[in-house]
Amino acid sequence: MVTMPAPADTFRVEHDLLGDRDVPADAYYGIHTLRAVENFPITGTPISAYPELVTALACVKQAAALANRDLGLLEPLKADAIVAACEEIRAGKLHEAFVVDVIQGGAGTSTNMNANEVVANRALELLGHDRGDYGRLHPLEDVNAGQSTNDVYPTAVKIALDLTARRLLDAMEVLRDAFAAKAREFADVLKMGRTQLQDAVPMTLGQEFATYAIMLEEDRKRLAEACALIREINLGGTAIGTGLNAHPEYAALASRHLREITGLPLTVADDLVEATQDAGAFVQLSGVLKRIAVKLSKTCNDLRLLSCGPRAGFAEINLPPVQAGSSIMPGKVNPVVPEVVNQIAFEVIGNDMAVTMAAEAGQLQLNAFEPLIAHSLLKSLTHLRAGCLTLAGRCVNGITANREHLAHLVAHSIGLVTALNPHIGYEQATAVAQEALASGRSVQELVLERGLLTEDRLREILHPDNIARPHAR
Amino acid sequence: MVTMPAPADTFRVEHDLLGDRDVPADAYYGIHTLRAVENFPITGTPISAYPELVTALACVKQAAALANRDLGLLEPLKADAIVAACEEIRAGKLHEAFVVDVIQGGAGTSTNMNANEVVANRALELLGHDRGDYGRLHPLEDVNAGQSTNDVYPTAVKIALDLTARRLLDAMEVLRDAFAAKAREFADVLKMGRTQLQDAVPMTLGQEFATYAIMLEEDRKRLAEACALIREINLGGTAIGTGLNAHPEYAALASRHLREITGLPLTVADDLVEATQDAGAFVQLSGVLKRIAVKLSKTCNDLRLLSCGPRAGFAEINLPPVQAGSSIMPGKVNPVVPEVVNQIAFEVIGNDMAVTMAAEAGQLQLNAFEPLIAHSLLKSLTHLRAGCLTLAGRCVNGITANREHLAHLVAHSIGLVTALNPHIGYEQATAVAQEALASGRSVQELVLERGLLTEDRLREILHPDNIARPHAR
Amino acid sequence: MVTMPAPADTFRVEHDLLGDRDVPADAYYGIHTLRAVENFPITGTPISAYPELVTALACVKQAAALANRDLGLLEPLKADAIVAACEEIRAGKLHEAFVVDVIQGGAGTSTNMNANEVVANRALELLGHDRGDYGRLHPLEDVNAGQSTNDVYPTAVKIALDLTARRLLDAMEVLRDAFAAKAREFADVLKMGRTQLQDAVPMTLGQEFATYAIMLEEDRKRLAEACALIREINLGGTAIGTGLNAHPEYAALASRHLREITGLPLTVADDLVEATQDAGAFVQLSGVLKRIAVKLSKTCNDLRLLSCGPRAGFAEINLPPVQAGSSIMPGKVNPVVPEVVNQIAFEVIGNDMAVTMAAEAGQLQLNAFEPLIAHSLLKSLTHLRAGCLTLAGRCVNGITANREHLAHLVAHSIGLVTALNPHIGYEQATAVAQEALASGRSVQELVLERGLLTEDRLREILHPDNIARPHAR
Amino acid sequence: MVTMPAPADTFRVEHDLLGDRDVPADAYYGIHTLRAVENFPITGTPISAYPELVTALACVKQAAALANRDLGLLEPLKADAIVAACEEIRAGKLHEAFVVDVIQGGAGTSTNMNANEVVANRALELLGHDRGDYGRLHPLEDVNAGQSTNDVYPTAVKIALDLTARRLLDAMEVLRDAFAAKAREFADVLKMGRTQLQDAVPMTLGQEFATYAIMLEEDRKRLAEACALIREINLGGTAIGTGLNAHPEYAALASRHLREITGLPLTVADDLVEATQDAGAFVQLSGVLKRIAVKLSKTCNDLRLLSCGPRAGFAEINLPPVQAGSSIMPGKVNPVVPEVVNQIAFEVIGNDMAVTMAAEAGQLQLNAFEPLIAHSLLKSLTHLRAGCLTLAGRCVNGITANREHLAHLVAHSIGLVTALNPHIGYEQATAVAQEALASGRSVQELVLERGLLTEDRLREILHPDNIARPHAR
Repeated sequence: MVTMPAPADTFRVEHDLLGDRDVPADAYYGIHTLRAVENFPITGTPISAYPELVTALACVKQAAALANRDLGLLEPLKADAIVAACEEIRAGKLHEAFVVDVIQGGAGTSTNMNANEVVANRALELLGHDRGDYGRLHPLEDVNAGQSTNDVYPTAVKIALDLTARRLLDAMEVLRDAFAAKAREFADVLKMGRTQLQDAVPMTLGQEFATYAIMLEEDRKRLAEACALIREINLGGTAIGTGLNAHPEYAALASRHLREITGLPLTVADDLVEATQDAGAFVQLSGVLKRIAVKLSKTCNDLRLLSCGPRAGFAEINLPPVQAGSSIMPGKVNPVVPEVVNQIAFEVIGNDMAVTMAAEAGQLQLNAFEPLIAHSLLKSLTHLRAGCLTLAGRCVNGITANREHLAHLVAHSIGLVTALNPHIGYEQATAVAQEALASGRSVQELVLERGLLTEDRLREILHPDNIARPHAR
Repeated sequence: MVTMPAPADTFRVEHDLLGDRDVPADAYYGIHTLRAVENFPITGTPISAYPELVTALACVKQAAALANRDLGLLEPLKADAIVAACEEIRAGKLHEAFVVDVIQGGAGTSTNMNANEVVANRALELLGHDRGDYGRLHPLEDVNAGQSTNDVYPTAVKIALDLTARRLLDAMEVLRDAFAAKAREFADVLKMGRTQLQDAVPMTLGQEFATYAIMLEEDRKRLAEACALIREINLGGTAIGTGLNAHPEYAALASRHLREITGLPLTVADDLVEATQDAGAFVQLSGVLKRIAVKLSKTCNDLRLLSCGPRAGFAEINLPPVQAGSSIMPGKVNPVVPEVVNQIAFEVIGNDMAVTMAAEAGQLQLNAFEPLIAHSLLKSLTHLRAGCLTLAGRCVNGITANREHLAHLVAHSIGLVTALNPHIGYEQATAVAQEALASGRSVQELVLERGLLTEDRLREILHPDNIARPHAR
Repeated sequence: MVTMPAPADTFRVEHDLLGDRDVPADAYYGIHTLRAVENFPITGTPISAYPELVTALACVKQAAALANRDLGLLEPLKADAIVAACEEIRAGKLHEAFVVDVIQGGAGTSTNMNANEVVANRALELLGHDRGDYGRLHPLEDVNAGQSTNDVYPTAVKIALDLTARRLLDAMEVLRDAFAAKAREFADVLKMGRTQLQDAVPMTLGQEFATYAIMLEEDRKRLAEACALIREINLGGTAIGTGLNAHPEYAALASRHLREITGLPLTVADDLVEATQDAGAFVQLSGVLKRIAVKLSKTCNDLRLLSCGPRAGFAEINLPPVQAGSSIMPGKVNPVVPEVVNQIAFEVIGNDMAVTMAAEAGQLQLNAFEPLIAHSLLKSLTHLRAGCLTLAGRCVNGITANREHLAHLVAHSIGLVTALNPHIGYEQATAVAQEALASGRSVQELVLERGLLTEDRLREILHPDNIARPHAR
Repeated sequence: MVTMPAPADTFRVEHDLLGDRDVPADAYYGIHTLRAVENFPITGTPISAYPELVTALACVKQAAALANRDLGLLEPLKADAIVAACEEIRAGKLHEAFVVDVIQGGAGTSTNMNANEVVANRALELLGHDRGDYGRLHPLEDVNAGQSTNDVYPTAVKIALDLTARRLLDAMEVLRDAFAAKAREFADVLKMGRTQLQDAVPMTLGQEFATYAIMLEEDRKRLAEACALIREINLGGTAIGTGLNAHPEYAALASRHLREITGLPLTVADDLVEATQDAGAFVQLSGVLKRIAVKLSKTCNDLRLLSCGPRAGFAEINLPPVQAGSSIMPGKVNPVVPEVVNQIAFEVIGNDMAVTMAAEAGQLQLNAFEPLIAHSLLKSLTHLRAGCLTLAGRCVNGITANREHLAHLVAHSIGLVTALNPHIGYEQATAVAQEALASGRSVQELVLERGLLTEDRLREILHPDNIARPHAR
């Protein structure tokens, strides 16, 4: 888990405001990155763990270079080299040079510096120069021209989030379809519905599984809405949103290039001062991820409950066995896939808390804690995606129903009495229910014994199909 | 804080499945409410603390009675009496009879029972009968006809939330306007912007205050969106969403009446089984309230920071004094209004956690914990409203700026050097900044001494107005 | 829920740094309180909702007066009147004059001012003077002498927390004993244990209930430890802990008096600067309350699960019915008492989040957000107490076991095979378990059929009593 | 981030209840591990990321083997080979064979299976047999003899937590000493104390830094207490705490061996059924880590505040520059080290929420979510350790004070007036403070002008040293 660069044999010297430092000769990163690696030895996970973030940084650098070239602020030769380097990164190369820790101080400055240096050094190489020969092409004056961490970094993070969220949306679709397929398969399986964990009234297992599919589809809509908000960027705002040092036309040009490069419908915020400091869209996205987590967890709780047994539990459905369940209890099979999804949900809820704290801690013109926000959201997105795919592929697709057991429970349930309410009244129905419970006898038997309804009428009312789908009659 | 009914002199006897109980003769509530009051002696706060919830319950009962009358399931005489009783409640009467605790078990059953009993007893009175004479008009068979707690309660809660949220939206508008007015007042006040609490580059105090107004407006949009989701109801689903015991046309009719009564654009969910168990809209609303809280807290943190002093702090702005600040330090005035809003924000974030836990704990066909969800959300909405109005009226409206001090800080700032980047390069600019910091001398002086720019050119570039609003040039 | 003083007919005039104000002539509070009531119209709940807090404030004021008298800094006549007023408050009088909102800005200053004013005005009355005649006895110069809100308020809050926690400790003992009694009652009731919601191996219902009793006792120990930390006070530190304006011997004297008055083993912190700003003991207490909540919630989840049914669930135990469960489903009885305790637990976990946010937001020499910390902790303590007593009295005490059903489940369980591991090996046992599951036959039958063990040996090994309590053999 | 085993050329066949699978011939893990890797492709981080957890598993396996050998339940030859394999693992070997994901379903079963298989295969090798030749030495029947995941896993997790916490305790000591050294260095530096961000009364910068050292020491004590609770284990309880399949003397023997192997004062819980399901000690530890996080974050907030500037902020102290602060603002240096520690704190607070959710979700005889609890706590412990060391080494040690600026602020402060309270009264002092604020004049000047005190008396009272440390006089 260590990201410290391995000991190198040869070095080049680079300089910053603190002085000179040896940088490994073959490193694409430079002195700013080196210092950041030393300053933030926190998690051991480098930002390259999030390929979408590295890709997004390259997209932004490319867009900025193109805009600066258009405006005559960057020589075409330099711009072309920068663009070529960025395209390599977007193609998946050089990611291993993005070595700063995912948890870092500095509001993303080190991530931006890391990108500037890698792009610059690769561009220098492409131009036939040595790495570190910044007099020819400079990480800050050229690659970062017209930019500040404070507009580049949030913009890149937002692009990375949107790209990653798209993959989650796809995974949720897979899981939704898995539930929907089971809903169709179980459309005619009658069962007792339960409220407050007590037997309520009949329904179908298909209705139960359809619920999970519908919930996922609703959550997908909410996630898509949150992503629309996240696509509002502040590129061109530079340090605090006033656009200092950026050409007046830079913001529009750079974002137009960025839309083309990414293929995403990015928009530029109306007020860049506000947009530079506002973490609202992150909080909103995190809130929606928490919503998804809450409902996935509820769904997994249900799956575990409905499958509990094999003999002393509900035993309504069977989850496919995917591994031996116990090192001591032979033959035991456990709901391990729902369990892992529950845990992902708990993690996401915890991540939301971290995002909340980080967002609240923003001060004045900037939120310095966006690296943690990015880390938390990217974790949540990728783990939720893994959870959805795993749940669909290793659990839901293989679920079977214990149809006879379910039918038996319905036929012997006291909950059937609810359907008699309109016919014999709540108070009479209560008396029947109480006697059924005390005596162990069936509702049907007691109603006939008391002469409350004829046998035919009773059979019609209590036809479980009518009860489960009264309005489909 | 005790909601237990005071000792009564005369009683009537009521009956439920547990047996007989004396109910105070003059109580509008009945035996179910009485048992609930005894079962849930938790907070001492009765549901009447949320008038919108009581109103919403009356709206639902009225709509149900009208639908049942239309369908011939309720005698017009009874329906009219129920409607009349509901209208009294909506006009603010009888609220004191809604006595069950805001934190209660039973998924809202006791709240629904409380409503059924109060409506029934008042309707009986209006019909010239005695309270408790349920043979003539029954709380469950008539007032609750075609209904279940599981559709009535969430529907009423959602109406109450929407009504309460509208009042928050208004309060946010008041606060937004207060900030916007200050933004206009301070449009020409130059100041140093700060990132990561370090001096960055100049901006105007107007820009800073405009940010708060814009944030609030964005949050208002998010709240309005969340309210649109909350207006999707499950009325007609009865116990678990299958609509058992409700007439096939009941759902459409009842919701049409409910739209008319409330004036709200309520919609009925496509799938009532899903809608009956899904707490997603509550989680979403809570997430948006958390977002509002996070940003209000950040704003208040800023106000406290900008006004800290009077002599050893930033002292950029002055908050109007509203009370003596200390029992020991004479003349001390503290930012007590932002402080109370910070605390409301922290409470709302805590409430969101409670909502999250409660939503995740839903099982199978119902979430039994909606009373806590309702309590938490109604608290958050009302406290945020109080916070916005208090912040606007007792703080923001009276804020003044220390213009000279702000101008002085800009003129002597090192941050001005950023504007020289495009002209003298990042590395030269860094050297100037470092010398300025070490020597205490000004950037301007050093640039001229080093012959980096002419005095005229320097003056033009460093004109603070150009720096604060470069693109307004 | 409105705390605004009712319109008064006659007024007295009081003065503060903002100017003159009319105060109702019959009010015990004064101008500082009046302004605070106007400044913080947040929850409508006055601090008198927490009688222990009002009592604690009176204890502190009394101790301070005695210490100042001992030191010759307060005339005996004044001191005696202050003491007499404080004793009245401690006896439960004048609480209605503590009217500031539980959520307030100012770090508790308004609460301290409210106490100073009520004590002063009552003391003036006792001396035969008019309320408001502060020239004779002053709320700040006399009642607050040698004090600051910043030592008085946290000290009073801590005393209030300790007093309230003692009541929770007692309630937890009641609940612990209720579970322990059931553990004894069910000591011989065999049942299947479950891990991961799947049938595991046999145990007794008594072991299951003993667990809840033991957990509560462990939590009681943790709560007692957290209370010991909360009894470390900073009285004598005054404004920031340096003790400015307090006599050098004041801290020791005042705390000695306070120990005598309260009967609590309070200690004075070693470093008062640290103690004045440190919210650590509050966070610790809140963390322990969260721990209690987590385990109470788990316990209630278990109770709801074990009692789910009556026919389609576990149906292992019966919770006593305490109210009708449904407005539509006759005879339905729900686990409403565990449900309300679950919700209290969720609220407490939310409160812990609010405390966390408030504690983290402390700055430099003070935490300005202690009022929310106090409010959150006092809510958690009182609601948990109510929950424990309600759970014991209205649920646990009346629980019964379905012994035959439980015995049947054990006899037919596959989990019995685990006990054969040491005798036939994990792999053979797995094969038996798999066949039992597939065929519906019993483990015993299959083992004999396969000739793996003799009937006698098998009966001995599988004697459920041996399995449930192997080491009690 | 991929933990899937690389494609292998040669395989051995292993068998479990689901059938046969090819396992790479050179893998130390076996079929159970292989399935788990496939079932839980969640984070990409294998459990070997926590070396203490791998070590702890080896300790437990070694202790169990020794106990079983002592009891005659495991042949000495097998036992010796198992012990030898465990010692290799404890020495840091074979860790790369612990490949299951840190987030996994199954309550830790896969982690235990992974350990059983690695130990068995290495032991087989040491005995001269092939990997996978389980007929000679079996992962479950030999390595796992007398054990269940449900006692092995929590025991190993607790040992890992204690080992990791010890390293945090050491790091906190380093940070505490760094603050204490600065407290001594700044013992005579006068400055204004602040409450509610407003100038209060004087103190020394030494007192301010001493506070941070004291807080850390108090937090260390709380952490040590929480660790004592975590050292209570349930080894010997097997599946649900009844000790089924373990020899009656096994628990005592195994834990005695475990104490010797680990050197930790582990105790066995009194009631193993309770201990097997109880997550209380984890919640307590997490609560204490949250407490540490809250206070570290507050401390870092203070450091960032006190160092804000360089010209438009407090500028009381200087943090050592460790990297360039901005890609656009030359010479800007930011408080990046406190910022990264803030973010660690936010992450820890989020982790606590995940632990809370996971602990609350435990059901009946087991908490299935301990893998997430372990992951969250181990992350919190290691990141907090990194944060403490980084903060000490790269920030606190290099802090310097701007002594003249601080002295100037004290001399010109209005807060000095507080010290006059006992001499001129609160109301007179208020008037002086108000005039000072309005006029910009000094308190001293105004007091003399009003003839309230003689110059000598005033000088004595207002001697800042007397004010900062009145009781050191």
